[in-house]
Amino acid sequence: MRPVNFGRIRARLDALAEIGPIAGGGSCRLALTDADRDGRDLVRNWMEDLGLRVDIDRIGNVTATWPADRFDPPLLIGSHIDTVATGGRNDGNLGVLAGLEVIETLIESGVSTTHPVAVAFFTDEEGSRFAPDMLGSQVFVGGMALEEALDLVAIDGARLGSELARIGYAGPGPCPAHPPHAYLELHIEQGPVLEAQGATIGVVTGVQGISWTELTITGQSNHAGTTPMALRHDAGYTAARVATFVRELATEMGPPQVATVGRIELRPNLVNVVASTATMTVDLRNTDEAELARAEAALAEAAEKVAAAEGVTVRSRRLARYAPVEFATPVVDLVERVATDQGWSVMRLPSGAGHDAQMLARVCPAGMVFVPSAGGISHNPAEHTEDADLEAGANVLLGCALELAGA
Amino acid sequence: MRPVNFGRIRARLDALAEIGPIAGGGSCRLALTDADRDGRDLVRNWMEDLGLRVDIDRIGNVTATWPADRFDPPLLIGSHIDTVATGGRNDGNLGVLAGLEVIETLIESGVSTTHPVAVAFFTDEEGSRFAPDMLGSQVFVGGMALEEALDLVAIDGARLGSELARIGYAGPGPCPAHPPHAYLELHIEQGPVLEAQGATIGVVTGVQGISWTELTITGQSNHAGTTPMALRHDAGYTAARVATFVRELATEMGPPQVATVGRIELRPNLVNVVASTATMTVDLRNTDEAELARAEAALAEAAEKVAAAEGVTVRSRRLARYAPVEFATPVVDLVERVATDQGWSVMRLPSGAGHDAQMLARVCPAGMVFVPSAGGISHNPAEHTEDADLEAGANVLLGCALELAGA
Repeated sequence: MRPVNFGRIRARLDALAEIGPIAGGGSCRLALTDADRDGRDLVRNWMEDLGLRVDIDRIGNVTATWPADRFDPPLLIGSHIDTVATGGRNDGNLGVLAGLEVIETLIESGVSTTHPVAVAFFTDEEGSRFAPDMLGSQVFVGGMALEEALDLVAIDGARLGSELARIGYAGPGPCPAHPPHAYLELHIEQGPVLEAQGATIGVVTGVQGISWTELTITGQSNHAGTTPMALRHDAGYTAARVATFVRELATEMGPPQVATVGRIELRPNLVNVVASTATMTVDLRNTDEAELARAEAALAEAAEKVAAAEGVTVRSRRLARYAPVEFATPVVDLVERVATDQGWSVMRLPSGAGHDAQMLARVCPAGMVFVPSAGGISHNPAEHTEDADLEAGANVLLGCALELAGA
Repeated sequence: MRPVNFGRIRARLDALAEIGPIAGGGSCRLALTDADRDGRDLVRNWMEDLGLRVDIDRIGNVTATWPADRFDPPLLIGSHIDTVATGGRNDGNLGVLAGLEVIETLIESGVSTTHPVAVAFFTDEEGSRFAPDMLGSQVFVGGMALEEALDLVAIDGARLGSELARIGYAGPGPCPAHPPHAYLELHIEQGPVLEAQGATIGVVTGVQGISWTELTITGQSNHAGTTPMALRHDAGYTAARVATFVRELATEMGPPQVATVGRIELRPNLVNVVASTATMTVDLRNTDEAELARAEAALAEAAEKVAAAEGVTVRSRRLARYAPVEFATPVVDLVERVATDQGWSVMRLPSGAGHDAQMLARVCPAGMVFVPSAGGISHNPAEHTEDADLEAGANVLLGCALELAGA
């Protein structure tokens, strides 16, 4: 079996990046916008040019199957082509276009497979315009009711179902869909670990569990000059103390626990006024559900304690919660074996970011292949992966697809 | 000598509060706006109705002198009638209108004084539209060049000199002005100390020194899920750690040191992104210059240390710096004696907020009288002082004025 034709992947990545271009070389194709429609149309044309059968389901997921007349459960290769507002060129796009290249390589090589092979892009993986993220794949596997998803409202006020119809991607396919035979996804790591370890291929063992909490702290606004320290109820100080606790917690628990306070907003946010309210978010992740729950409990306890000491109140709201996912052992082992056989330096690691693969893992054996992200940078036009690494990832994807599809 | 007629003070406070009214009963008369002009016109009419000589200087400070034909240095009573956007009814206005009432009482009582008595309102004490605050009194005493002040640009883009001319308050009087014989100012405390101590009259010993620093912390934006804790350069965490240090510093130094982080802004300020930059302000105040300088040095050292440990950079910018001011001992003692003789419970305290009196203290003996602020609330329509306390403050002002003017 010959390897993939990387020139085609490169050309398609470049062509897709030209849709919704932004300064610095990235793209902005927020889900179900005109730019997303144009990106979808382009990829769909490529699918049809290869003679694949293109199916669109009711949440707008697009699946292209080879051979076109096969309706039994396929080996599905997927990812997404929507982006965040400051998207890079490879995030999501790589997985879809490498999947397309795998199928084109299979067609050209004349092999036949036991199971059909399909490539899909899922609706709204990023969640930037319509929360939550991984929406299309979640509806695909029955994790969210179709009607609930169609009624979601965007940050710009649009209804998801209406936008789907407007751009012509409200298809007839059922949701939940029939489970695939197996699922594979190639993605950039979006973190610094592979690069730091000098590994070309990441064998993804699972996806960290994610817990997002918003804390709203209410104290009392006061004059910074005239209010003695002992009489203060400072929401800003409380937020800062909780933020330093969050770091202490992650340090004390050690890897793989990570913890981040990425958002802090004070009111009235003036140099000479003690803040009356603070809103902050805490992002906790762990590959172990019990450890993640322990971190959540420690946060809640510490926030209450700090707030009580300062005489302020704290209200907690859960923004997102996903349990950790472990990919099927046979698929993980397969990725490692194929990559090793092809001669790449490999490393097992969990994914710190969410991916469509974690949704598909609910209904079929699933796995992922990572390639390095330069400097760990992602969701940024400066996101970059060397061509040699992209090509290596696509060839590992091809090798795994051959085995899982039964070549 | 009969006491002040509080009904007139009440009526004038109420009438002035009707100009630029805001929800909750406060006022918005940002410096040199149409509302400020209307407030100035009203108070100036009252001054002229009493037969005073009204002088306007080149920065728009308005001084009304009694008797009108006296040009030797007066006992000056002053404050301001501009407000913050969410101003209360008494802040500044009380000092000006009580000064006017002192003069009206002197006129009605038929006394004559060794020195003339004048009442003034200074331009842009609040600094909300044109920074810095205490602008008019600073130019009055020669602390800032007139030309520099006239060229200041407002938050709305207007030039100070142009706005002054537009509202008809670019007067001919020289800046700096001739120093007064002495200066008195009655003001609400704007803090909770008098109320907490059950004192009616605050004998103000001086004004805390103020140090405002803006810190800009630059780290690296990273994915909250994929970036191991050890590889982070988190500007948000650094800001939180500096904010908790600021609290520790004030606690360790003890009163009268106060320290506040009132403003924190993260970028990109997203739940799942390690912040690349943080901007924060630190407000340090102390009545002792050496202690204030020690606090500044400790902050700078701690910020550098925390930043170095996190692998981020910190840039420091001074936003404001006023040395502590001690009011003239004879004036402070006079305020205490008059208030005690009138039977009020008194308490010596420094001012935590800045006041025009601290500028006047550079050129003549100056002092202040405080009355309690309910709940310590100020710069808020809910700002409140009981009528009995306002009246007590005005009578102490009258008693002090009689002695300083030489009745």
